[in-house]
Amino acid sequence: MGLKFKSLLDMSGLDGEDIATILDTAESLKGISRRPIKKVPTLRGRTQMNLFFEPSTRTRTSFELAGKRLSADVVNFSPASSSLGKGETMLDTVKNIQAMAPDILVVRHQFAGAPHLIASRLPTPVINAGDGSHAHPTQALLDMFSVREKLGRLDGLKVVIVGDITNSRVARSNLQGFSAMGSEVWVCGPRTLIPPGIEKMGARVSHDLDQLLPEADVIMMLRIQLERGSGERFPSLREHSIRYGLNLARLKRTKPEVLIMHPGPINRGVEISPEVADGPRSIILDQVENGVAVRMALLYLLCGGADETGD
Amino acid sequence: MGLKFKSLLDMSGLDGEDIATILDTAESLKGISRRPIKKVPTLRGRTQMNLFFEPSTRTRTSFELAGKRLSADVVNFSPASSSLGKGETMLDTVKNIQAMAPDILVVRHQFAGAPHLIASRLPTPVINAGDGSHAHPTQALLDMFSVREKLGRLDGLKVVIVGDITNSRVARSNLQGFSAMGSEVWVCGPRTLIPPGIEKMGARVSHDLDQLLPEADVIMMLRIQLERGSGERFPSLREHSIRYGLNLARLKRTKPEVLIMHPGPINRGVEISPEVADGPRSIILDQVENGVAVRMALLYLLCGGADETGD
Amino acid sequence: MGLKFKSLLDMSGLDGEDIATILDTAESLKGISRRPIKKVPTLRGRTQMNLFFEPSTRTRTSFELAGKRLSADVVNFSPASSSLGKGETMLDTVKNIQAMAPDILVVRHQFAGAPHLIASRLPTPVINAGDGSHAHPTQALLDMFSVREKLGRLDGLKVVIVGDITNSRVARSNLQGFSAMGSEVWVCGPRTLIPPGIEKMGARVSHDLDQLLPEADVIMMLRIQLERGSGERFPSLREHSIRYGLNLARLKRTKPEVLIMHPGPINRGVEISPEVADGPRSIILDQVENGVAVRMALLYLLCGGADETGD
Repeated sequence: MGLKFKSLLDMSGLDGEDIATILDTAESLKGISRRPIKKVPTLRGRTQMNLFFEPSTRTRTSFELAGKRLSADVVNFSPASSSLGKGETMLDTVKNIQAMAPDILVVRHQFAGAPHLIASRLPTPVINAGDGSHAHPTQALLDMFSVREKLGRLDGLKVVIVGDITNSRVARSNLQGFSAMGSEVWVCGPRTLIPPGIEKMGARVSHDLDQLLPEADVIMMLRIQLERGSGERFPSLREHSIRYGLNLARLKRTKPEVLIMHPGPINRGVEISPEVADGPRSIILDQVENGVAVRMALLYLLCGGADETGD
Repeated sequence: MGLKFKSLLDMSGLDGEDIATILDTAESLKGISRRPIKKVPTLRGRTQMNLFFEPSTRTRTSFELAGKRLSADVVNFSPASSSLGKGETMLDTVKNIQAMAPDILVVRHQFAGAPHLIASRLPTPVINAGDGSHAHPTQALLDMFSVREKLGRLDGLKVVIVGDITNSRVARSNLQGFSAMGSEVWVCGPRTLIPPGIEKMGARVSHDLDQLLPEADVIMMLRIQLERGSGERFPSLREHSIRYGLNLARLKRTKPEVLIMHPGPINRGVEISPEVADGPRSIILDQVENGVAVRMALLYLLCGGADETGD
Repeated sequence: MGLKFKSLLDMSGLDGEDIATILDTAESLKGISRRPIKKVPTLRGRTQMNLFFEPSTRTRTSFELAGKRLSADVVNFSPASSSLGKGETMLDTVKNIQAMAPDILVVRHQFAGAPHLIASRLPTPVINAGDGSHAHPTQALLDMFSVREKLGRLDGLKVVIVGDITNSRVARSNLQGFSAMGSEVWVCGPRTLIPPGIEKMGARVSHDLDQLLPEADVIMMLRIQLERGSGERFPSLREHSIRYGLNLARLKRTKPEVLIMHPGPINRGVEISPEVADGPRSIILDQVENGVAVRMALLYLLCGGADETGD
């Protein structure tokens, strides 16, 4: 057991063995959050720093809980009140952070590539918690974990990702991750929201959700990220919702054992109807629960939660 | 020992036995904060999440300290940078939080009823840390604790609450709590600041503070919450201060053993003069100290700080 | 061992023995941050409150890590969302904080003298984490630690502090600290940025950096604090950079063993060139690392991290 890399930056570098190691470790750690005493001493005395250059309470909280349940010392660093406002470069900021001897950095950034840049300059392991439209590998791993847990396998599944593919780091990372595990990944949306050439990353492309419904094992609805300006590239929310929204009528045409997923936060009534989001095929909240377990696994594997010596 | 309810949402559901249980438990825990080592392992491995939809450093810090002194893992969730800004509903936000397996939620919200709604949908215990103008039960309990500690009893006391009763969750919760323990509770202020029908909640109403002074055992001054717009309903701060402000002249006409209270933050020279706030009858800072003890008691009782097994 | 004062407010009250005690303690604690298990139980159950009235993620993080590595319970109190916005006085805020029984307060404030005022009213030890243009004693101590570690001594050294001396709490505290340890301290900058009368504090004054270069043992470049308005008192950044910026050409005229320091965050290309900041004589990142050790020492010495009894 152990990973062949220092940092988790995107899914492109992970092979099936790496992914299986992470998912198996998460499986063994998931039970900790279900106990009355949700804590093991594994990372006691390790310093986990959450550097969120782009705010995200949800993901930050998941990482914070993951670290605390492993007994790490977790420090949140938010750039709002930081030296960045004083004109310091990002690299100077992280070199300063590095000098305080963290054992692992969790980095979210609005710009694609920022976690890679940081990881290339520092000796400390970095976990990418989402960078621009580029990658969100822990989301992909928790999604794979959730599907494997429910369906028992990943290979041979037909996974359909629906919505604004162009702006979605979740779509990119899941495409790479599920493909590496032998799933057949489809991306589905209007032409304006699918990046040209995505077939080269292994995706199959469709603009007709209704055609894909009967054979899908997993349907992953993406959030319409109005705050990122994706609204400008399709005529109206209402029309998008009619053509690509997942509602009960569409759900009836899927396999009975289909899994409905969404990375959250959901826009109820836009890309997914409340009946579907809250219905029996939805595993949206399982995804959130499994996020803690997958992040515990990554912290454990990358911090080398090894010898409990010292003090 | 133990409480008959899962969540503490307001004072209306508590009977004298419940209140006594909480105050007795707080009494036994208060000493922890006076030791050099301010920490017991009672809630080790439990996850306490502070969900403050309305900001409040003071109350949040009190809860954070209470949790940490019981060894809980405390996570602060502030909505400013949360998914709420992305259009997610409050219930979706808290269901996500729930999926991360907290053991107890501390909720403050600007809207009355929000903690009730959350508690009705989630299995996890909820402590209301203040919701709109509705309730602030931990404030009432720490106020009762403070009075009982100083005077040895709550029954038969004459408690006078002065100021903007209409907008005060503190007034409502104290009215219910002190009444349940056998105190006689008066509310006092101009007609515009006293809600019609409050007599039905057990309050006696007066518009003349001077008349009440000689017989009061406890005088609780409320903050004039200018930021909530209460200023529009009385002619001027100066006039309000003259008629309802507590100053040395008024204090001289009270019983010598009267207790002067204020939930803070105080407006010096508005509802209370500095000489009174800092004087020998003021127990304002005792209230703050006791707040930590009462919150420790509630966390302990509602988290069922039971069997120290597992790991 | 032990200090002769309750609070660390500025460097003026420290004699050589005090400073040596702090630096020696820091030396013995520095290794903790280099271990896999970066944690000792010294301050378990102590409550450290970081009251940052002026935001500073960098310094706050350093103190937070220092406290957590000593096992203290660390609570961050930020004024942004606090009662200060509701008109409460600073002293009322800190008296409230005091009532929650912290063991030590770390205070940063935009106004000179605020930490002194707080310390004079509260029984709890206060560490000044920077107040206005007045003092930044932990920065001075980490700077002295860094120099002593590299050069083996402080007495007899020629220390040159360059830049906006008038606005610099770092300059003031370092002037006092290095002088107390027998260093010869020079301040250097244009007339408009050097306060009249600083010679009375023991400084030697020069307006010609080039003259000082050959004999300096330590060159400490200050940040041009554009956000504090120092820009109005010199003609242009470019001219300042030409006359007082430290670049490779100037570095060649120094002793080979000179130490280049900067309190950060740096303005690359303004007061210091990238080649110098990142070069072999720069100990800028050592300063950051040593900051954690020095702050651990102060927390330990002022919290009296004494008897591990109780629980």
